[in-house]
Amino acid sequence: MSTTTTTQVAIVGGGPAGLMLSHLLHIAGIESVVVDNRTVEQIETTHRAGILERDSVRLLVDSGVSDRVLTEGHEHEGISLRFGGVSHRIDFQKLAGASCWLYPQTQVFVDLHRARTRDGGDLRYGITDTEVDGVLDTPTVRYTDADGSRHEISAELVVGADGSRSICRALVADAHQYYREYPFAWFGVMVEAPPSAPELIYTRSAQGFALISQRTDTVQRMYFQCEPTEDPAAWSDDRIWEQLHTRLAGSDGFRLKDGPVIERTVLPFRSFVQSPMRHGNLVLAGDAAHTVPPTGAKGLNLALSDVRVLAEEIERAVHKGDDDALDNYTDRALSRVWKAQHFSYWMTTMLHNSSDASQFDEQRQLGELQSLVSSEAGSTYLAEGYTGWPHH
Amino acid sequence: MSTTTTTQVAIVGGGPAGLMLSHLLHIAGIESVVVDNRTVEQIETTHRAGILERDSVRLLVDSGVSDRVLTEGHEHEGISLRFGGVSHRIDFQKLAGASCWLYPQTQVFVDLHRARTRDGGDLRYGITDTEVDGVLDTPTVRYTDADGSRHEISAELVVGADGSRSICRALVADAHQYYREYPFAWFGVMVEAPPSAPELIYTRSAQGFALISQRTDTVQRMYFQCEPTEDPAAWSDDRIWEQLHTRLAGSDGFRLKDGPVIERTVLPFRSFVQSPMRHGNLVLAGDAAHTVPPTGAKGLNLALSDVRVLAEEIERAVHKGDDDALDNYTDRALSRVWKAQHFSYWMTTMLHNSSDASQFDEQRQLGELQSLVSSEAGSTYLAEGYTGWPHH
Repeated sequence: MSTTTTTQVAIVGGGPAGLMLSHLLHIAGIESVVVDNRTVEQIETTHRAGILERDSVRLLVDSGVSDRVLTEGHEHEGISLRFGGVSHRIDFQKLAGASCWLYPQTQVFVDLHRARTRDGGDLRYGITDTEVDGVLDTPTVRYTDADGSRHEISAELVVGADGSRSICRALVADAHQYYREYPFAWFGVMVEAPPSAPELIYTRSAQGFALISQRTDTVQRMYFQCEPTEDPAAWSDDRIWEQLHTRLAGSDGFRLKDGPVIERTVLPFRSFVQSPMRHGNLVLAGDAAHTVPPTGAKGLNLALSDVRVLAEEIERAVHKGDDDALDNYTDRALSRVWKAQHFSYWMTTMLHNSSDASQFDEQRQLGELQSLVSSEAGSTYLAEGYTGWPHH
Repeated sequence: MSTTTTTQVAIVGGGPAGLMLSHLLHIAGIESVVVDNRTVEQIETTHRAGILERDSVRLLVDSGVSDRVLTEGHEHEGISLRFGGVSHRIDFQKLAGASCWLYPQTQVFVDLHRARTRDGGDLRYGITDTEVDGVLDTPTVRYTDADGSRHEISAELVVGADGSRSICRALVADAHQYYREYPFAWFGVMVEAPPSAPELIYTRSAQGFALISQRTDTVQRMYFQCEPTEDPAAWSDDRIWEQLHTRLAGSDGFRLKDGPVIERTVLPFRSFVQSPMRHGNLVLAGDAAHTVPPTGAKGLNLALSDVRVLAEEIERAVHKGDDDALDNYTDRALSRVWKAQHFSYWMTTMLHNSSDASQFDEQRQLGELQSLVSSEAGSTYLAEGYTGWPHH
């Protein structure tokens, strides 16, 4: 049976960005419908980022999504920068008065999905053949449900929160796409092992970058720089551990704890921004409009800051009849996006080996790391970016 | 008439590095002879850098060279970073508790030359055909004077402070040379005009980098990014001012004051480090061992910090009979050199347009500048590097 639904805001994409927007709109008394071609189970089992900025945590807690991040997440008051075989701690709390939280994106999704279900949200997962139309007038979203029936949602505004393979992105006419490719990727593994350290270790070594992260008492998340063309299936546990042990080797007694590798993937690595983020009654949010390389963990946090700004502008448009409110959205969102793009690029270039880097570049990179860790101001600048510039 | 002189330290190169070393050794009761193939007049009339770090000024004053830098130089308590047509002041005093001084390198030379002459220094300018020999045993420096006579200096140690075209550099066996080329250069002009601003203005514009500096009440020093192959003679005054006015244009009321261009040169632009800086009884100092791009004005300051460290190590070797003292020199000098190399690279890449830069890179560059000027920590980190990390 086909249905036609009329709502205020149709949200394409039911990941954290789409659900958080739907939640914030609900609080503001604005109706929305969320559609996603993935199933809830698919989203819940796809490992993504794990670090939340201070204000991302505040948003989840203060908007009533959940305080589970505070009880089940882990507050990290710093990170280590490791180079020359020695770790240097960057103390976020001391330097910037802020922490970040280790709390996997899958858990953020679970919390948001529960909150929207609790509040009676209209969420439609596992659909196919989504189409968006009429964005210059009254937008329409059409899709096919699991039974093969075609449905239609008619809305005042459609939001493309549909990730890096967004179908909405292409509907923004005359947009400019900014991008940067990198000559490397990340090899990501989930391993059964106890934590090797209480906080993340960002490592620059002669063999390339590595990142030691955590998940639980028995499962850890680790990454190391690899060729973009690497086939994860071709890597044995031994070969993976050899890379990680070599890159983490040093003279300060640190020992990486290993165990069985239970998941291995190669993560794409690029920088991308589309501007503007609005066209008529269509707006983009999160990965649909911009991608950052994973270094610095800004992706999910940018998606949440996008929808925080967007919810404010939509509320202004709807409740105050301010038709121009959405005009501000691109500029407000992108001013943070470009700072985050720089931060991610900075963290990336400071810690990775590029195959076309000269020996001069390698020594200069060590000179930068040495300058940074020996300067309270430099370390604070990094801490501010990592824990996130304040929302305002 | 040929002569043979025996001394403790033979210094090849009588610019600021060589003269400052000779001066510091004199204070420590160690004899030296300085030779240079340029005449005093040539050195006094070749315009070079004009910014001294805090500790470079202290070194000149505290070692009794001259306090003219304090009376005739200009203390600069900050700089402006200009981008998007608006200047943002970086307040060095407030942020880092330090200033730098505008005091041309030619004046530093004049002061040092007077001090060494006053103290009876053995300085030999305007020589030719300099040769250095025997650096693994008892070094010898041979040269021809203005009358065509050949002379010889026999020393315990020879110091190559002979600049970027050093003849001593090649005598360091098994050295590694690190270098980086840049796809641009600086067009430098001396102009007859009143100062446009009390402090330096580092400008990033869509047309490329520009730097507004000062010299006197009636003569100013300015630079703008150009192609490395540019012929300065092909540039009319009008064409030069068009470039400068366009790059300094903006919305904050700043007006660049122009006038006749009285000197025009294209400055080379590269990063270079040779390591080690010692081979037997030969050591290198300043530009002979390393070159920085001019952005950030580190060249002269690094040369002075090199010879400060070197004088300490020579004194330890001579007075305490510590034959290993010179072993520390390369590591001590290079730890500062690599920080300065990074700083110069950072200032360069943050403010210049590269012809191979993508539009992503341009927007990211603006994102970095915005992050920097809106962060007290980021601005302080820049201020620390610009005014110079403390000598220790």
